[in-house]
Amino acid sequence: MDSLAPASSKAHALQRRYGAAVPAAGPWNDVIAALLEHRSVRAYRPDPLPPGTLETLVAAASSAATSSNMQWWSVVAVSDPAVKKELAKIAGNQKHIEQCPLFLLWVADMARNQRIADAEKTTFETMPWLETFMVAAIDAALAAQNATVAAESLGLGTVYIGAMRNDPQRVAELVGLPKQAVVVFGLCVGHPDPAAKAEVKPRLPQSSVLHHGRYGATGEAADRAAYDKEMAAFSSRNEMQATTWTQRVKNRLGPIASMNGRERLRGILAAMGFEVR
Amino acid sequence: MDSLAPASSKAHALQRRYGAAVPAAGPWNDVIAALLEHRSVRAYRPDPLPPGTLETLVAAASSAATSSNMQWWSVVAVSDPAVKKELAKIAGNQKHIEQCPLFLLWVADMARNQRIADAEKTTFETMPWLETFMVAAIDAALAAQNATVAAESLGLGTVYIGAMRNDPQRVAELVGLPKQAVVVFGLCVGHPDPAAKAEVKPRLPQSSVLHHGRYGATGEAADRAAYDKEMAAFSSRNEMQATTWTQRVKNRLGPIASMNGRERLRGILAAMGFEVR
Repeated sequence: MDSLAPASSKAHALQRRYGAAVPAAGPWNDVIAALLEHRSVRAYRPDPLPPGTLETLVAAASSAATSSNMQWWSVVAVSDPAVKKELAKIAGNQKHIEQCPLFLLWVADMARNQRIADAEKTTFETMPWLETFMVAAIDAALAAQNATVAAESLGLGTVYIGAMRNDPQRVAELVGLPKQAVVVFGLCVGHPDPAAKAEVKPRLPQSSVLHHGRYGATGEAADRAAYDKEMAAFSSRNEMQATTWTQRVKNRLGPIASMNGRERLRGILAAMGFEVR
Repeated sequence: MDSLAPASSKAHALQRRYGAAVPAAGPWNDVIAALLEHRSVRAYRPDPLPPGTLETLVAAASSAATSSNMQWWSVVAVSDPAVKKELAKIAGNQKHIEQCPLFLLWVADMARNQRIADAEKTTFETMPWLETFMVAAIDAALAAQNATVAAESLGLGTVYIGAMRNDPQRVAELVGLPKQAVVVFGLCVGHPDPAAKAEVKPRLPQSSVLHHGRYGATGEAADRAAYDKEMAAFSSRNEMQATTWTQRVKNRLGPIASMNGRERLRGILAAMGFEVR
């Protein structure tokens, strides 16, 4: 395993992840150290992946929990430069989609279930509900996260691409998805470009996300003020627009325009065979 | 790391996960071997977890990717036996919820965002959409899966509990969630009871879930027939009702009654402050 911090660097790993708000973490090992090292990678070398890497990542993905062992997901592996170029356009020209040698499209796949219903000459009453779509999307997310952990353990970089939902119908066309199958997100996989800086990004203090027994928001305002400072410093160190987290939340959640058309998702899903009642 | 298969047991790990349909997996290491070893644990010793375990798991969770660094999730840690007993009832009397020393409730948390909007005296136009709820649920899933990988690396067992969605309002009441916060699933964490058998469960062959460049279903019928045999043998070995996977899919997806009321989720979410337009 490349690039694993040794267990002795626990304090350092926690400080990178939380800035000054270091939590009272206990047990530690190399797997946990590797998880703490995650950062999204948006610059890749063009080198292909070692043979069998895709199958290893899918074996990790298949090993994640899945609701009632139903496995309502599948994955399309894209390496064709022309297709990746089109997918990058849909995602607002995210160049890393073109750069990475392997782009994985994670599919909430009820089409497989429909084929089972057809083959068995029966009707599945539970298909058109929000609950069912949500389980499929969550199954896909658990699988993808295992693939991500596996990729990072091999020294590879990844970044999730939610912007596949800017135009799920065009994405489906590009890779031949049938009705009742929709890409919930993409995932770039490749060798990180060593010339590009990729620092671990600080997260909210645990006191803002972890609730003991009952939900509470005491201390949240102070946490947010401290986190705003951490993120402003992070942005400045990483040559991003130096702004606070609060401002980023306002930019992302405030104007409907920030959704890039994704407010139409429910109607689009209906047209793709997911009713989401 | 306890109970890690050495990298040399790659063939054995793949055979346990896929039965006869062993894929052409390539690179391998101890992290990947640990991911392949996953099995859901439904019997726990009552022993408490080592001090700081919760904080370690949350540090792993916080390290997962999150859409635009928005972190639209939180987690409620439940150890009170009385509360766990009520939560077990909601889940159709799943006794492992009572047994495990730590039960984590993973929350799609737009309430934190609403508090930011209120504090900043602004309106967030992007809140009431399916897209936004889905991102929150996926963020919670990515975080929970990292916590699961971390727990298993420490020799602990886990099992996801989707049945928290049988009654999201009662779950919210039990742990004091505000409006716009909903538990998407629970996660038992604890020391596995060594007396209980927990075999790695086979999954669908990779040829049914992995598509190269374009989606296709050629070979799916043959895959399913082979997998039906694997799962019937697995069920028989594990003293479960010996039935095929196809039959389980029909039982789970066929009758609306199998949803245990979860077909009402969209309306319930609306009552909880998630409009899901």
